[in-house]
Amino acid sequence: LPESSQRTAVPGVATGLAVTGAGGDVLYVEASLADPETGDTGLTLTGQLGDVMKESARIALSYLRSRGAELELPVTALKDRSVHVHFPAGAVPKDGPSAGVTLTTALASLLSGRTVRSDVAMTGEISLTGRVLPIGGVKQKLLAAHRAGITTVLIPARNEPDLDDVPQAVRDELTVHTVSDVREVLEIALTPAKVAEQAAA
Amino acid sequence: LPESSQRTAVPGVATGLAVTGAGGDVLYVEASLADPETGDTGLTLTGQLGDVMKESARIALSYLRSRGAELELPVTALKDRSVHVHFPAGAVPKDGPSAGVTLTTALASLLSGRTVRSDVAMTGEISLTGRVLPIGGVKQKLLAAHRAGITTVLIPARNEPDLDDVPQAVRDELTVHTVSDVREVLEIALTPAKVAEQAAA
Amino acid sequence: LPESSQRTAVPGVATGLAVTGAGGDVLYVEASLADPETGDTGLTLTGQLGDVMKESARIALSYLRSRGAELELPVTALKDRSVHVHFPAGAVPKDGPSAGVTLTTALASLLSGRTVRSDVAMTGEISLTGRVLPIGGVKQKLLAAHRAGITTVLIPARNEPDLDDVPQAVRDELTVHTVSDVREVLEIALTPAKVAEQAAA
Amino acid sequence: LPESSQRTAVPGVATGLAVTGAGGDVLYVEASLADPETGDTGLTLTGQLGDVMKESARIALSYLRSRGAELELPVTALKDRSVHVHFPAGAVPKDGPSAGVTLTTALASLLSGRTVRSDVAMTGEISLTGRVLPIGGVKQKLLAAHRAGITTVLIPARNEPDLDDVPQAVRDELTVHTVSDVREVLEIALTPAKVAEQAAA
Amino acid sequence: LPESSQRTAVPGVATGLAVTGAGGDVLYVEASLADPETGDTGLTLTGQLGDVMKESARIALSYLRSRGAELELPVTALKDRSVHVHFPAGAVPKDGPSAGVTLTTALASLLSGRTVRSDVAMTGEISLTGRVLPIGGVKQKLLAAHRAGITTVLIPARNEPDLDDVPQAVRDELTVHTVSDVREVLEIALTPAKVAEQAAA
Amino acid sequence: LPESSQRTAVPGVATGLAVTGAGGDVLYVEASLADPETGDTGLTLTGQLGDVMKESARIALSYLRSRGAELELPVTALKDRSVHVHFPAGAVPKDGPSAGVTLTTALASLLSGRTVRSDVAMTGEISLTGRVLPIGGVKQKLLAAHRAGITTVLIPARNEPDLDDVPQAVRDELTVHTVSDVREVLEIALTPAKVAEQAAA
Ligand SMILES: [Ca+2]
Ligand SMILES: [Ca+2]
Ligand SMILES: [Ca+2]
Ligand SMILES: [Ca+2]
Ligand SMILES: [Ca+2]
Ligand SMILES: [Ca+2]
Ligand SMILES: [Ca+2]
Ligand SMILES: [Ca+2]
Ligand SMILES: [Ca+2]
Ligand SMILES: [Ca+2]
Ligand SMILES: [Ca+2]
Ligand SMILES: [Ca+2]
Repeated sequence: LPESSQRTAVPGVATGLAVTGAGGDVLYVEASLADPETGDTGLTLTGQLGDVMKESARIALSYLRSRGAELELPVTALKDRSVHVHFPAGAVPKDGPSAGVTLTTALASLLSGRTVRSDVAMTGEISLTGRVLPIGGVKQKLLAAHRAGITTVLIPARNEPDLDDVPQAVRDELTVHTVSDVREVLEIALTPAKVAEQAAA
Repeated sequence: LPESSQRTAVPGVATGLAVTGAGGDVLYVEASLADPETGDTGLTLTGQLGDVMKESARIALSYLRSRGAELELPVTALKDRSVHVHFPAGAVPKDGPSAGVTLTTALASLLSGRTVRSDVAMTGEISLTGRVLPIGGVKQKLLAAHRAGITTVLIPARNEPDLDDVPQAVRDELTVHTVSDVREVLEIALTPAKVAEQAAA
Repeated sequence: LPESSQRTAVPGVATGLAVTGAGGDVLYVEASLADPETGDTGLTLTGQLGDVMKESARIALSYLRSRGAELELPVTALKDRSVHVHFPAGAVPKDGPSAGVTLTTALASLLSGRTVRSDVAMTGEISLTGRVLPIGGVKQKLLAAHRAGITTVLIPARNEPDLDDVPQAVRDELTVHTVSDVREVLEIALTPAKVAEQAAA
Repeated sequence: LPESSQRTAVPGVATGLAVTGAGGDVLYVEASLADPETGDTGLTLTGQLGDVMKESARIALSYLRSRGAELELPVTALKDRSVHVHFPAGAVPKDGPSAGVTLTTALASLLSGRTVRSDVAMTGEISLTGRVLPIGGVKQKLLAAHRAGITTVLIPARNEPDLDDVPQAVRDELTVHTVSDVREVLEIALTPAKVAEQAAA
Repeated sequence: LPESSQRTAVPGVATGLAVTGAGGDVLYVEASLADPETGDTGLTLTGQLGDVMKESARIALSYLRSRGAELELPVTALKDRSVHVHFPAGAVPKDGPSAGVTLTTALASLLSGRTVRSDVAMTGEISLTGRVLPIGGVKQKLLAAHRAGITTVLIPARNEPDLDDVPQAVRDELTVHTVSDVREVLEIALTPAKVAEQAAA
Repeated sequence: LPESSQRTAVPGVATGLAVTGAGGDVLYVEASLADPETGDTGLTLTGQLGDVMKESARIALSYLRSRGAELELPVTALKDRSVHVHFPAGAVPKDGPSAGVTLTTALASLLSGRTVRSDVAMTGEISLTGRVLPIGGVKQKLLAAHRAGITTVLIPARNEPDLDDVPQAVRDELTVHTVSDVREVLEIALTPAKVAEQAAA
């Protein structure tokens, strides 16, 4: 079993893809909601995040705060519970806008109680209206996903031309979805609500 | 269809014009209002904005908070809902006062539910009383608007002399409005309320 | 008509005088009060202000918060409405204490609904008790006022000797009031309440 | 009449003494209380104050908040009204602990409505328990007080030896009180309550 | 008796392991809850902690705020009482993610009233979902534990290969548990609830 | 009479010992509680304190907030009254953890109304559980205490070996207590409650 199975076994965790000094890598985004009985609200961000990545987390949260009802997510939970988003490993500095879709997916998973599919990894900037904007490093990210045992990858539609750079042997073992709205991401990446309930039973 | 059609398809998005290192460019301003059930209020600004641009956003919001009732905008929404303003792309630093009219238009669109015309782009500093003050880079901005398929451009009245520098071939394909008060901007740029309601139906 | 007529056509705007790299210049101070229905209170300062100028704005506001009732200003408005003070143009850095009287006048105009006379410009530091303290650059400031079509100028009493440096031709076309208390400034600069009401009707 | 007469004509203003680059100088401390109807509470400090001087203001205020009732000062006013302390001139940087007694006197004058004697100037650090601690520059400060027309000066008891350095001609025209507790300062410097009431009538 | 017996005699203290300039060392984490009658809530962190270690403390607290009820911890206490986490000695700078499990254990001990076993020391990063992630310096940390009289050590499962580097003589005197979820840590390290009650009686 | 008699004549003041550039010195810690009628709560720290010393003050306060009831201190006062801790002289920078016991004693004196014995000085870091941890400069500190007329000194138990460095003539005139828990400090240093009541009568 790939590591992503263990990581994404609970709602609130999504698998992203990053470019690092040493090529690409799989990156987990973890989100939690505090028990309302513990008081306090707001957003805590950890994992040695740079300014652009912190802004991505705020965009993902605002997207869900303004569009969550349309998406049938119980956003009322945000009123009484504080949100924490963490990117392990905690000592590695991280930055860039390309975790936008992963952040949105982790938060939507947390709110809905639906886990994220462990065979899916994703990359893409999001805008405040939910558009998926292009990012860099598609080749390195797909190679990293493949190495990690991921079989389905979501990339921005505007990055489709970059797929030409990915070796055919890797392309053959990956299902790649090109997406332009984060709603497409959520439809593909979240497990069905029923399955989640069985898991919780 | 130009990209601006997709971007401005929802209320809260307006098309601006900026001067970049590589000439001019089209710049989108996105605004959202959180669901009041998610708690928390205030203004969040993202997109790697410089100090002058952040101040422009505060001026635009204060203008609407003090004059919104005259403009028949439902400003009461601001009491219970937090506002987020984002400038994609998230990793590109941005600064300067010339997005003032675009910011005001995006926020007025958001409050009114009226989308911004996708064929319109604009540039201009605003003052706290709604005056439109001159900006730089008119030539590069109009060339960028033209390249992006925009057909109507709003510039500050005090920039009218700069139109002489724009090639005649471009001038012929653009309708340019020179404006001195942001109310003129809103009248031209916002789609009629009725159309917006049909779109929502 | 001088530009100051347009700028000061609404309550909350006063005309100041500044020394810049290129001699003196006219400087507008704009103040607005948010609609109480938009929630939130406090003071927002914009216009790329330096520390001394930001402190001047706080002094002007505290003066009105402590002495406003004596001056028959409806200071209760400050309890439920946030104040924004802006100095256009937004990208030009500004500093120094000499906008103290202009700040106080703009705020008193805003609270009273009485516009500021468009033929009047002013300069002077204020103390927390309303005293008008001397400033620099009297000559450059009066030349700038004259160029801008201003006909009445208010300067600190302790700057009276500096008037000797102003060319007689300019002196002859300006009415100069030397003032030592900001109450004198408000009496001269604010239009009568009645006129303001007619304007609003 | 010395300038201090005008400055200290209202409650809340006390005359201090400072060492500057050019010898000693008289320094005014102004304090104001906002009208409770203007909302907001807290302490605002202006006058380009350094860290040590800002801490002196907090010590003076805490002294009055903990000992005010013993001193028969109506400290309840602090609950609903914000305090502003300003040191003119606003653009001149100021620092050091020696304004402690002046700050306490200005605040006690403000709370009691009793003006500070205009013939009195003072210098001295205060501790949180109201002790008056020694300061530097006694000679320059007394020369400055004398030049400004001050006739009574308060200095810390532990600075008594420094009086030897003051020219006899100046010493002869000044009444110097050496004090070790800030209560002695208030007894000497505040005008009687009755006089204050007549002034207000 | 080793020093850890004295340190961990009260609930809220756990023994960690750190790498320092001079090899490894034992490190105590102390946590306290304020009496609810003292007002104020929130988290205070002291001990000259670096950014990564401060984030570890926030992750540990969020983990307990979201999962505490499952763990049968009375998290409601967090609503009315402020938490303070301190790492003695107070003047020594400390950083890194490897105190994550120790922080979680100290906080869980505090909430449950169950002391931490004085013969146990631990090291490991935690994720927001409670996973125990690998850290560095296993050899130095185990040598330090041994020197300090510790007999049981908890390390991340993914650090198991590092045990090969530990001298056999030390390995023989230590019971080492490799753990992958912080729940395993709490089960091993916290004394039984009954014992804690007897201690309190 | 030594100066410490005057300084510690009121509850809330304790005598500490510090190492300075010029050997050791006596250091006073002053604490005050605001009248609850003045509104506002929280902790104010003054005296140009470094980060480690500010953290020591927070540790001392948290210790009392969590253990105060056991110590029969009326900690409820902290809910409605703001605390101010000041280290005179106000312009001298101070840092280090060794004022921990002095801070705790000053705060316990303030809460209990029992003054601190004027013949006692102390030094020692405290942990959040009240343990007294070793500090540096024992020799210089004891020489300074002796010079200042102090007759009883409290030092951490783990600093007992450092007493060998203190000249026998000084040792003979000082009673030195070695302590390992801050409760021992409070028992020795605070005057009996009865004496305090008589002083207040
Ligand atoms: Ca990137
Ligand atoms: Ca697609
Ligand atoms: Ca610009
Ligand atoms: Ca026009
Ligand atoms: Ca100036
Ligand atoms: Ca005059
Ligand atoms: Ca000084
Ligand atoms: Ca005396
Ligand atoms: Ca580490
Ligand atoms: Ca294991
Ligand atoms: Ca020390
Ligand atoms: Ca002992």
